[in-house]
Amino acid sequence: MMNTPLLLTSFIHRAEKYFPQKQIISRTLSGIQRFTYSDFVKRTRRLSSSLEKIGMEPGIKVGTFAWNHHQHLEAYFAVPCSGAVLHMVNIRLSPEHLVYVINHAEDKILLIDEDLVPVIEKVRDQLHTVETFVIMSDERSLPETTLSPVYSYEELIEQGDENYAFKEDLDENSPAGMCYTSATTGNPKGVVYSHRGIYLHSMAIGLADTLALSERDVTMPVVPMFHANAWGLPFASVWFGATQVLPGPGMTPAIIAKLIQDEKVTFTAGVPTIWLGLLKELEMNDYNISSLRALICGGAAAPKSVIRAFEQTHKVPFIHGYGMTETSPVATLSTITSSMEGAVGEELIDIRAKQGLVVPGLEIKVINEKGEVPWDGNTMGELIIRGPWVADEYYRDERSKSTFKDGWLYTGDIATINEQGCIKITDRTKDLIKSGGEWISSVDLENALMSHEGVFEAAVIAVPHPKWQERPLACVVLKDAYKDSVSKQELLDYLAPQFAKWWIPDDLLFMQEIPKTSVGKFLKRALRERLQEHFINL
Amino acid sequence: MMNTPLLLTSFIHRAEKYFPQKQIISRTLSGIQRFTYSDFVKRTRRLSSSLEKIGMEPGIKVGTFAWNHHQHLEAYFAVPCSGAVLHMVNIRLSPEHLVYVINHAEDKILLIDEDLVPVIEKVRDQLHTVETFVIMSDERSLPETTLSPVYSYEELIEQGDENYAFKEDLDENSPAGMCYTSATTGNPKGVVYSHRGIYLHSMAIGLADTLALSERDVTMPVVPMFHANAWGLPFASVWFGATQVLPGPGMTPAIIAKLIQDEKVTFTAGVPTIWLGLLKELEMNDYNISSLRALICGGAAAPKSVIRAFEQTHKVPFIHGYGMTETSPVATLSTITSSMEGAVGEELIDIRAKQGLVVPGLEIKVINEKGEVPWDGNTMGELIIRGPWVADEYYRDERSKSTFKDGWLYTGDIATINEQGCIKITDRTKDLIKSGGEWISSVDLENALMSHEGVFEAAVIAVPHPKWQERPLACVVLKDAYKDSVSKQELLDYLAPQFAKWWIPDDLLFMQEIPKTSVGKFLKRALRERLQEHFINL
Repeated sequence: MMNTPLLLTSFIHRAEKYFPQKQIISRTLSGIQRFTYSDFVKRTRRLSSSLEKIGMEPGIKVGTFAWNHHQHLEAYFAVPCSGAVLHMVNIRLSPEHLVYVINHAEDKILLIDEDLVPVIEKVRDQLHTVETFVIMSDERSLPETTLSPVYSYEELIEQGDENYAFKEDLDENSPAGMCYTSATTGNPKGVVYSHRGIYLHSMAIGLADTLALSERDVTMPVVPMFHANAWGLPFASVWFGATQVLPGPGMTPAIIAKLIQDEKVTFTAGVPTIWLGLLKELEMNDYNISSLRALICGGAAAPKSVIRAFEQTHKVPFIHGYGMTETSPVATLSTITSSMEGAVGEELIDIRAKQGLVVPGLEIKVINEKGEVPWDGNTMGELIIRGPWVADEYYRDERSKSTFKDGWLYTGDIATINEQGCIKITDRTKDLIKSGGEWISSVDLENALMSHEGVFEAAVIAVPHPKWQERPLACVVLKDAYKDSVSKQELLDYLAPQFAKWWIPDDLLFMQEIPKTSVGKFLKRALRERLQEHFINL
Repeated sequence: MMNTPLLLTSFIHRAEKYFPQKQIISRTLSGIQRFTYSDFVKRTRRLSSSLEKIGMEPGIKVGTFAWNHHQHLEAYFAVPCSGAVLHMVNIRLSPEHLVYVINHAEDKILLIDEDLVPVIEKVRDQLHTVETFVIMSDERSLPETTLSPVYSYEELIEQGDENYAFKEDLDENSPAGMCYTSATTGNPKGVVYSHRGIYLHSMAIGLADTLALSERDVTMPVVPMFHANAWGLPFASVWFGATQVLPGPGMTPAIIAKLIQDEKVTFTAGVPTIWLGLLKELEMNDYNISSLRALICGGAAAPKSVIRAFEQTHKVPFIHGYGMTETSPVATLSTITSSMEGAVGEELIDIRAKQGLVVPGLEIKVINEKGEVPWDGNTMGELIIRGPWVADEYYRDERSKSTFKDGWLYTGDIATINEQGCIKITDRTKDLIKSGGEWISSVDLENALMSHEGVFEAAVIAVPHPKWQERPLACVVLKDAYKDSVSKQELLDYLAPQFAKWWIPDDLLFMQEIPKTSVGKFLKRALRERLQEHFINL
């Protein structure tokens, strides 16, 4: 067979050649912008050529600090298709972590959204490797800034060469992108994506048995483009020629609902908190979201109440997935196999509430100290993964060796696996509650609490206990309408029939908000730190 | 990213782990056999271990000489998953070519269907590399044979080790299989498939935008397993866990129709002559074929009348494809993109009658002496292809250099490409009619003739002409019911309004049959040889 390398350039060539008139719909600070793929590819070529003029060369890191929009998508291709490496910096990092990741990745050029420039200005003095800044805005003129040397993105586009030839002779294993993932403690950890990995991951999510991403789709990643490549949607959407909607800065549930309705989005993806917010919006205002053929949810386990509302009230198939920055990210999906066909009602919700089957190409195991756990849907163990789009190390990081062992990625997630091979994430290793030698799943308790009509969000944490080592403590945010009517005892009584007695939390606290990570997951560590003496003081 | 090699072993592991109860339905000389994937994988492991005991080792060639059935499928995996190379020998080759391909590939072991043993016995003395024969039958006892040393397949299965461990440390570029393709003149030419090539091809045909091959499918390759890997269906079906129907020896249209009906086949594939035969059968007898979601047709251009009958009368989506042994084989498909959605009636038939869009992962061009032809659906040029599942040479063959040039495969097929990028094969380079310096497509004329209600088959060939260099000559087989009622003039008059005057054949001959190649394509070379003096003698 030809030794054709698996490169991102083939994605852009296909879009350019076969789908020049398909659209990329981008929401920016100045409104909705529409580009054709033809425009997109020309602009991407111009960007590559201009970035080369200001210092981009093969192998260097180019950072983006941006929302989901067309310029970010252009960088997604302009950088790797000229042999450099795109570092998608998380815009919600703390200043310390922001400085760390940019220095650690050794970004040489930084592309920054206009509204995010102040964030970078504040830390500019601590950035040791960045030589050049580019500001992304709809205008060609530069805003006032202390950053220097600084270029206008649109001016670079204007000055670029629309006939720039992408690099076709790259090794498929050469780096194309990188994302940092937050660590339980310490600095974020870097994951480097190769052209080959992104290529195979893109193929995998186009399979009929996985996400079936297609040219006929209108895809909208609500998940940020700095969060594990927006789960690979922008890459695959370009390859297959799907219409793309990029929802831009400061999205609200209303903006998301309106984009789905107006642009007839068929396929969207985000974390559970996004879908919780969208549900609230759909309850309050009328939208037509019937174009959606799939709503993908990952990043954390979605409560059954959310799944039920989308599947039953809104008739939107809710596909629960599992993945990590380290897995490109799609690893498992709650899709329907032939043995599940015909499932309706709660049976279907039960399937959708699991993280499902591993996608073709990857391998998983759920293991405990005795080896692989039985496929009983009950025994918990750690999920481990391997395959061609799974990282084999953290970038220049000593912590690699505790995660990557014997050719497997140890996810740190606790799961069960049922007789059909579908996994259910029951916890993070670090969030699992170890009570008197037995394991209690914080996620199961959270989902049960969040299925109560009065509960908006719930986090259950392990808190040290003088007798039992650890005991569960529930932290609950009530919906506004229920703030005065739902009591602690009512919620504990609600849990009682659903779990063994020793699973029921020893206490339950009402809060205004659950603290969240920069990508919208519950930040249980903060809760644990704040509440670590709760049972000792009781 | 992990450097996990892309190997066929991952296909079999997935089937074994996640779909042990799904079925493989195999029609053999003794009737319908049913195996689960669990059975299949155990038998495959047993086969690997037993073949190793009788001489299989990494890198050697193991030939199969067999119909489509479960034992052939077992060999499809047992051989490459232990590092050896599966040579799928075409059972319809002439004795000379049969001897050539087995000697040329240097097959060491030959697995032969019981009913095909006499074919091998006749040439046994000329096979210089084969050391061991294995006879595949449902019985453990061996039939009478002059072959020696000879083993019973079922006895090897019985004596094998069902815990045999497949080789996981192979290089993904190592050879997994090989097929020979017939040449215009001279001996067949060998194509070697790598694990990587088959892996990527399998992913490609699982994409929602291509064949969307899925676990939920019941696939039936009517195309022989020695014809370009049965177009990759057996490989991908195992990986995705699809139910498989293998239609066995001496298929008739009635057998095919009954299998579709009884086993609720959703997805089938074969050459146009197969579907012509099936249509005849469906006209004569009642079958329920409503389970079919796709009928794939390749190997030669299908007449519109056939497409129309399936799409309109039988409501079966007819997907026309293009590929070659050299392209694994799927290269283009007449699938429906968003810009074609809503096409009905003749507009849909027109789309389906083209060979369609190149699949993601491959690149095509249509070129003539001026470079790429315009996308006007009219200008003819040669189709060239490249990509990671395209061969880069013929196995140990001097003829490689005329086909593989500058990194491209020159297909020898003449095509047009329309404004959407869909190709239409208008001819083989060698079948194209060059009349007075202009090109006439024999395929277009054939399709037009075959759309006449009285015509069963038609071949149009280039015949030397004293004035015009070459002129078209039509060879027509009438349907039985029309044998006495349709005249030559009627058919020529039927063509007249559809083509420029100079395209109309100078003569038209009625025949009992069009000679065909071993894989069911029109053997126009035989017609040309027989009729080469037709216009000179007129």
